[in-house]
Amino acid sequence: MAQQETAYHAGHVRTDLAIEAREFYSRQENRNDIPGVEVDILKQEDITVTRVKVVEDVGARIIGKPKGNYITIEVPKLRDNDKDLQENVTRSLAEEIIRLVSLKDDSVILVVGLGNWNVTPDALGPRVVEHLLVTRHIIEYVPDQVDEGVRSVCAIAPGVLGITGIETSEIIRGIVEKVKPDLVIAIDALASRKMERISTTIQLADTGINPGSGVGNNRKELSEESMGVPVIAIGVPTVVDAATMANDTIDMLVDSLVSQSRKEGEFYNMLKNMNRDEKQRLINEVLAPYIGNLMVTPKEIDRLIEDISVVIADGLNIALHPSIEMDDVGRFIN
Amino acid sequence: MAQQETAYHAGHVRTDLAIEAREFYSRQENRNDIPGVEVDILKQEDITVTRVKVVEDVGARIIGKPKGNYITIEVPKLRDNDKDLQENVTRSLAEEIIRLVSLKDDSVILVVGLGNWNVTPDALGPRVVEHLLVTRHIIEYVPDQVDEGVRSVCAIAPGVLGITGIETSEIIRGIVEKVKPDLVIAIDALASRKMERISTTIQLADTGINPGSGVGNNRKELSEESMGVPVIAIGVPTVVDAATMANDTIDMLVDSLVSQSRKEGEFYNMLKNMNRDEKQRLINEVLAPYIGNLMVTPKEIDRLIEDISVVIADGLNIALHPSIEMDDVGRFIN
Amino acid sequence: MAQQETAYHAGHVRTDLAIEAREFYSRQENRNDIPGVEVDILKQEDITVTRVKVVEDVGARIIGKPKGNYITIEVPKLRDNDKDLQENVTRSLAEEIIRLVSLKDDSVILVVGLGNWNVTPDALGPRVVEHLLVTRHIIEYVPDQVDEGVRSVCAIAPGVLGITGIETSEIIRGIVEKVKPDLVIAIDALASRKMERISTTIQLADTGINPGSGVGNNRKELSEESMGVPVIAIGVPTVVDAATMANDTIDMLVDSLVSQSRKEGEFYNMLKNMNRDEKQRLINEVLAPYIGNLMVTPKEIDRLIEDISVVIADGLNIALHPSIEMDDVGRFIN
Amino acid sequence: MAQQETAYHAGHVRTDLAIEAREFYSRQENRNDIPGVEVDILKQEDITVTRVKVVEDVGARIIGKPKGNYITIEVPKLRDNDKDLQENVTRSLAEEIIRLVSLKDDSVILVVGLGNWNVTPDALGPRVVEHLLVTRHIIEYVPDQVDEGVRSVCAIAPGVLGITGIETSEIIRGIVEKVKPDLVIAIDALASRKMERISTTIQLADTGINPGSGVGNNRKELSEESMGVPVIAIGVPTVVDAATMANDTIDMLVDSLVSQSRKEGEFYNMLKNMNRDEKQRLINEVLAPYIGNLMVTPKEIDRLIEDISVVIADGLNIALHPSIEMDDVGRFIN
Repeated sequence: MAQQETAYHAGHVRTDLAIEAREFYSRQENRNDIPGVEVDILKQEDITVTRVKVVEDVGARIIGKPKGNYITIEVPKLRDNDKDLQENVTRSLAEEIIRLVSLKDDSVILVVGLGNWNVTPDALGPRVVEHLLVTRHIIEYVPDQVDEGVRSVCAIAPGVLGITGIETSEIIRGIVEKVKPDLVIAIDALASRKMERISTTIQLADTGINPGSGVGNNRKELSEESMGVPVIAIGVPTVVDAATMANDTIDMLVDSLVSQSRKEGEFYNMLKNMNRDEKQRLINEVLAPYIGNLMVTPKEIDRLIEDISVVIADGLNIALHPSIEMDDVGRFIN
Repeated sequence: MAQQETAYHAGHVRTDLAIEAREFYSRQENRNDIPGVEVDILKQEDITVTRVKVVEDVGARIIGKPKGNYITIEVPKLRDNDKDLQENVTRSLAEEIIRLVSLKDDSVILVVGLGNWNVTPDALGPRVVEHLLVTRHIIEYVPDQVDEGVRSVCAIAPGVLGITGIETSEIIRGIVEKVKPDLVIAIDALASRKMERISTTIQLADTGINPGSGVGNNRKELSEESMGVPVIAIGVPTVVDAATMANDTIDMLVDSLVSQSRKEGEFYNMLKNMNRDEKQRLINEVLAPYIGNLMVTPKEIDRLIEDISVVIADGLNIALHPSIEMDDVGRFIN
Repeated sequence: MAQQETAYHAGHVRTDLAIEAREFYSRQENRNDIPGVEVDILKQEDITVTRVKVVEDVGARIIGKPKGNYITIEVPKLRDNDKDLQENVTRSLAEEIIRLVSLKDDSVILVVGLGNWNVTPDALGPRVVEHLLVTRHIIEYVPDQVDEGVRSVCAIAPGVLGITGIETSEIIRGIVEKVKPDLVIAIDALASRKMERISTTIQLADTGINPGSGVGNNRKELSEESMGVPVIAIGVPTVVDAATMANDTIDMLVDSLVSQSRKEGEFYNMLKNMNRDEKQRLINEVLAPYIGNLMVTPKEIDRLIEDISVVIADGLNIALHPSIEMDDVGRFIN
Repeated sequence: MAQQETAYHAGHVRTDLAIEAREFYSRQENRNDIPGVEVDILKQEDITVTRVKVVEDVGARIIGKPKGNYITIEVPKLRDNDKDLQENVTRSLAEEIIRLVSLKDDSVILVVGLGNWNVTPDALGPRVVEHLLVTRHIIEYVPDQVDEGVRSVCAIAPGVLGITGIETSEIIRGIVEKVKPDLVIAIDALASRKMERISTTIQLADTGINPGSGVGNNRKELSEESMGVPVIAIGVPTVVDAATMANDTIDMLVDSLVSQSRKEGEFYNMLKNMNRDEKQRLINEVLAPYIGNLMVTPKEIDRLIEDISVVIADGLNIALHPSIEMDDVGRFIN
């Protein structure tokens, strides 16, 4: 999970989601537009698609992410196990993927499922790979059995550094050099600031995955620069950062205290004067023995990961293979 | 898990561990002895055994648990994967079980694995059942194949109310009436106030399991009163309560703030004046949408549960079958 | 799985399926009707429903099963992962369940998931229980939250004798006496003679589950007689019996040899003269060290069990709750 | 699993084990020595180590495997869950690995866990990887934390062709070019002719893995030739080939028939005249719809795979890291 690697870099707020970085900035600065960032919001009944385009360096600095496109699909009711809604989200995801990439009929796509299949909330990537319609070997060995409109898709779930001893980016670079795909799509579990985002939000980005804000850490990047081909990242929040949760709880508690006690003098000033970074630093210190090791997840995380994996895999199946539509997806998958 | 059922009853501090209730009282009241409670502590190199005996009603009220014996085995290094230490803990556990129960050669023991096998931190009970040396059917059908010194042991992991729709105590009572055991041993995952207790502490109690402080809720009890035979409870903390973690973090943060700012006037008084129950109530309110649904666990929870399940199952195998010793345990288990 | 218990009783052919016993008889005797047995066949496009009614003792002896109703739903394409077909089978199953049982609005139904959740092909029962809409506790504790047309359903997956040390029928009887259901539905994995039946055939029976042909083995039965309430059995073949597979292979091989060699003299006579029981006895002898321990399953058995579990659970959800229809099933399940 | 790829090439008998090929030849030719093959057998109490060295082409043709060393460790009682025996096997395995490879203090070793983690009997490789002491990243990033006598070990479980769409050998070659190991060790599940070998036999070979007898299929090979570094293969039988089982059953049945009937005339001659290839071809034809899809495994396969994975991982941990001994292995592994 990306959060392990980014947890300590933040002067920025700690989040993997561009949309949360934007919200945070807006709330803090009390303004809705961010310089150098374009935002486009589409609201449907149960689905909100937000397209954030970071166009200038100033925006990248504020958002804390490289220039590029960040699309967020928010579906608060996605946990409700409504099959129709799941299908609508699958279609939305497929459309956004198609908008973001540019593929030819004979393009080869490598899907990378990041994360650890033994840690439930980190197993999103490997599980998407399992539900994927993989075709490259069939196209190569028995091309006659493949319909028109089916692209060459291959996939790998390489595991995490602690299990392999090899940087994931090294493994992927090695495979990219052999397979020579035209596009890499990396799936990863994310950390969110908000419990309610867990398995209800999907983020797409065409900037790849840049742990540690990408500052000079080129070696660990999964990006066009490091791979030599475009890299799309698809992420879903599956855990809440424990420090974040503690911080948010404290903020809420203080608000509640202040409004109840009506004593806004010394106490209010004191908390007001303690800036956010200071407070976050204190919380990190207090939680230090826990952090990196702690997970905060919903109890039903196993089912949530399974459901969202199917949505993402089917979205990819539809987006990558022109001849496949919603009604077909189940039919092809092993 | 017991914590689901007890989370909201607390005027007392929220914990499943008698030892934590005792610590809490001692810290709050600044005294080491609790009226009506006897405490006996045995320190070995890496293992501390604390025997708490609640002998009078006043002690039961303070501790928030019925009169009876509560033995806690604390092994801070138990997560370190040290086989020798695991074997020592297994032996300690077996000794404490033997001290607590009184068995005849032909006693029948029913082990109940509480919890949900699909939710990792709640799967302790079912996993212990899997590692148990179950003999009742062999003794009944092919008694010739059973050595002397093997008692009749049977086991069940009935699942949780949300999956069965039946109170666990009803299921167990039904089985007890058929099997007519001389002793019931119930294994359960517990909530702790402290992260470091997760899978390092084992609690035994001869008072059974009494969700909701046992006030008139006889129906849900797993106790001698409700089952008609003695009930031993064995529990291991596998989660931290999210509200507890938030509360503790805030306490630590406030301490830190106070000591840094040296401003002990209004702010200090305000927090001092807000009593614990009030603060906990506020935190519960703030965390309400999360609570009951949230788990805070270590990342390696899957391995931790597996390891401690083996320790408990082997401890039971040694304690219940006089002819089985540490070196044999692996040999008999399926 | 039932096959473990019945494997050695057979003078009859070894199968859990009434439809296979019937086919076997028909082939052997070269006649289509069986005395004392009524057969009704409904063919739809991809689904064949065969209703076998054993009405007289003579039929029961021939079929090797007690008098009662045996409904078989055969769907050769059910493994193809076609969602529409799965929904049609779910509906067919629901209809056949409704035909077979007689329920009042306030009936209480106990669903029993037989089998071992740790052995994939034997995990059918426990997995159906997981996907079931269980309502009894909600109706009991918060009746206001339950819609009209929702019946009281509870469920248990008790595990197998080797894990519990207790006969499953004893456990269920104990629970039945507490819960007092009006109907018990038992789900079990079956053995089939044919590979192609694995997870493509569903059998319903209103005679319960009678291991060992039920001869005097009342104690192990899950039947109306032993439980005091009607018992419906739902079974799906998930393994092929290894002895059966060897036997069938040999039959096919002999046919092939005979037709190739055109030597029908001594050899043909010898095999012809060796009756089936004799041959089966020989094969059992030869395979003895394997049998009871061996499983023959398809490689994708994990996915097949998951898919068919959902079909059966949804079929039950629709059949047992009048207000629930196909479109709703996902919405209610945990 | 290798058996999928080799099942149809056999003019030779179908087996992944050199020791079985040798037995088969010996029985058929009624002689104990094979030209061009050296055999060395070490018998201990419960462990038999057989070192087969194929030194000349004639031997390679007979055995059906390339020239090189094939070491087989046979432990019939390995399934009995005897911890002492498991430790002895672990030590034997470590010794044989050390004999077979030649490592320097700073050698880098890449362990490859072949197979599919979702199909239990094929999950041997991935599970060994999970239990392995992986050190490369620690040596690289925090060399101070690593003791002397710990070598740089990394590992990957790439999945199978049906899931990735990429030949495993391509993936490994890509990673080898990045990581530049001095040795590759590949772990794989094997097919055996004999049920009793399942998880009781370990085969080491320094010829790598050569699906399809390696005839011109260089592309799929995991060998020194294709990888540029020495490749050691470690395999354990986890399934019986269904065709093999049928064939063996028939052979035993025919023997039994012949000896019983004393009719050795026409029938005996006919079967005698039908050569093995012919008979195997017939069986393959008869079983064709099953083959490739069928698994024959023991029921307790899940536990067997877990136990043998630990033995192999620990054997590797001891063999690859000079400072690690039997008592330490548990201590280091996550």
